[in-house]
Amino acid sequence: MLSKAKIRLIQSLQYKKFRKSHALFVVEGIKSISEFIDSGWEIDSFFLTENAFAKMRNLPQKIKLSVVSESEIKKVSFLQNPQGAVAVFKMQDQEETESTALDKEFVLALDQIQDPGNLGTIIRTAEWFGMHHIFCSEDSADAFNPKVVQASMGSLARVKVHYVDLKDFIDRRKSPVYGALLEGNSIYETSFQQPGIILMGNEGSGIRGTLMEKINHPVTIPNFGHAESLNVAIATTVFCSEIARRRGE
Amino acid sequence: MLSKAKIRLIQSLQYKKFRKSHALFVVEGIKSISEFIDSGWEIDSFFLTENAFAKMRNLPQKIKLSVVSESEIKKVSFLQNPQGAVAVFKMQDQEETESTALDKEFVLALDQIQDPGNLGTIIRTAEWFGMHHIFCSEDSADAFNPKVVQASMGSLARVKVHYVDLKDFIDRRKSPVYGALLEGNSIYETSFQQPGIILMGNEGSGIRGTLMEKINHPVTIPNFGHAESLNVAIATTVFCSEIARRRGE
Repeated sequence: MLSKAKIRLIQSLQYKKFRKSHALFVVEGIKSISEFIDSGWEIDSFFLTENAFAKMRNLPQKIKLSVVSESEIKKVSFLQNPQGAVAVFKMQDQEETESTALDKEFVLALDQIQDPGNLGTIIRTAEWFGMHHIFCSEDSADAFNPKVVQASMGSLARVKVHYVDLKDFIDRRKSPVYGALLEGNSIYETSFQQPGIILMGNEGSGIRGTLMEKINHPVTIPNFGHAESLNVAIATTVFCSEIARRRGE
Repeated sequence: MLSKAKIRLIQSLQYKKFRKSHALFVVEGIKSISEFIDSGWEIDSFFLTENAFAKMRNLPQKIKLSVVSESEIKKVSFLQNPQGAVAVFKMQDQEETESTALDKEFVLALDQIQDPGNLGTIIRTAEWFGMHHIFCSEDSADAFNPKVVQASMGSLARVKVHYVDLKDFIDRRKSPVYGALLEGNSIYETSFQQPGIILMGNEGSGIRGTLMEKINHPVTIPNFGHAESLNVAIATTVFCSEIARRRGE
C-alpha cells in the first residue's frame, strides 16, 4: 500500500530541486532496478506489482519491497507504459573525480547537453565502449532525471557522471582535448593519445567559446551527404567506437 | 486563415491510415521544410506565422503559403513547442528500388524498427555517411510518421526509404548480408564487400529467424563494458562509420 505522502514524494522526484533536497532518484523496470542493486546502490523504497514480483529473481534478502496494485504503480510511474516496478534509490557521492583510473583513460566531457534522451543514450553507449567517467558542464541535463535514467538502460548504475566547471576541469588535467567540431581533422586520421578528453558540444550551439580555446585537436566526422549535423549521441558514438577500435590494433 | 476542414485534414495526418489515403505527410520547421522543397518534393499547403515568414529565404515563387496566427499554428502542429511553420507535402513514389546506383552501394535493411525516433535518427545518420537507400520490413515504423520526419532533420528529403518484404528483397539481390548480432566477428575486423546489405534488428527482439538464415556475415560491435545491448540507432551508426572509414583507406 502506497501512502499519499510517499506518492507525493516520488512524484516530486521528477524535479531536480526535490531530487537534490532528498538526495533520492527513481529507477523503473525490473532490469534497470536490478542493475542498480547489483552495482551497490542503496535502495530507499521499492514498489512492484504482483506480475513484476513474479519475474524478480535473486533479490538480496535485506531489500524490503511492497507489492502494490497496477493502479497504484501508475501513480508513481513517470512512463507512458509503466513497467510494474518503481524503486527509489539514494544518490551516491560522485566526488572522487581525481581517481587514478582517470589518469589512464579517455573520458567524455559534455558541454551543456540538454536533451535527457541524448544524455541517457550517451551514458549507455560510453559504457559499452569501456568508458567509466563522464564530466558534464553544470548547465547540462541532470543524470538522475527519470528520462536520462530510462534511456541509460541501467548503465548509469556503473558509469560515473560528474558535474563540474568544464574549463576548470580541463585546466586541472594535463590531457589533450579532442573537440568534436564541424571543421577539423578527420576522426579516422586522428591519433588519439591516452589519457584524453573527448569534448562534445550542445545540440544547437556546439561547444562554447571559452572551451573552444582549450581544444588541442579539432576533430571532424567526415560528411558524405548533405545533412547539416549529426545528433550529439550519434557523434559521441563515432568517437567512442574509433577509440575502442584502436585498442585492438 | 486555416479552415476547419484543413485543420481536420492535417491533424488526421498523424495517422498512417490517413497519410496513405491522402498520400500526404507533414513537415515542421523552416529548415526541414526548405530541405524538402530544395529536394523537389511537391508542396500541398504551407502555413507559417509572421515570425517564421520573416526568416524564410529564397522561397521558389510558385509556392503558395498562408501566414496564420500562433494559435492557428498550434492547432496543426504535432510538436510540444511548435516551430511556427507547418507544411503538407505530397508523397513520392519510392518504387524504383532496383536502380543501378543500388548495385554499387551499401544499403541498410531494417527489420521491424518500431521507435519513430530511432528510425528518424537512422535516416539522418545514414545520409551523413553517404547512404542513399534504406529498406524497411513492412511492419517497421512509417518514415512519414511526424516523429520520424522530425528526428530525420531534413535527411528524409534525400534518403529513399522503401518498405519491402525483406526476405524477398535479400533473395532477389546477390549482395552479401552483414547482420548486426550480439555474437559474431568483430566489426573492426570484418571486411565489407561492396555492394552489401547491412541488416539491423528490432529494438527488443533483434533480427527475426527467417532473416537470420540469410546472414552471410554475423558482425558484432565489441562490448567493453557490462551493458546488455546498444540502442539500434547507435549500432547502425557504428556500421555506417566503419564503412565510411574504409572508403578512405
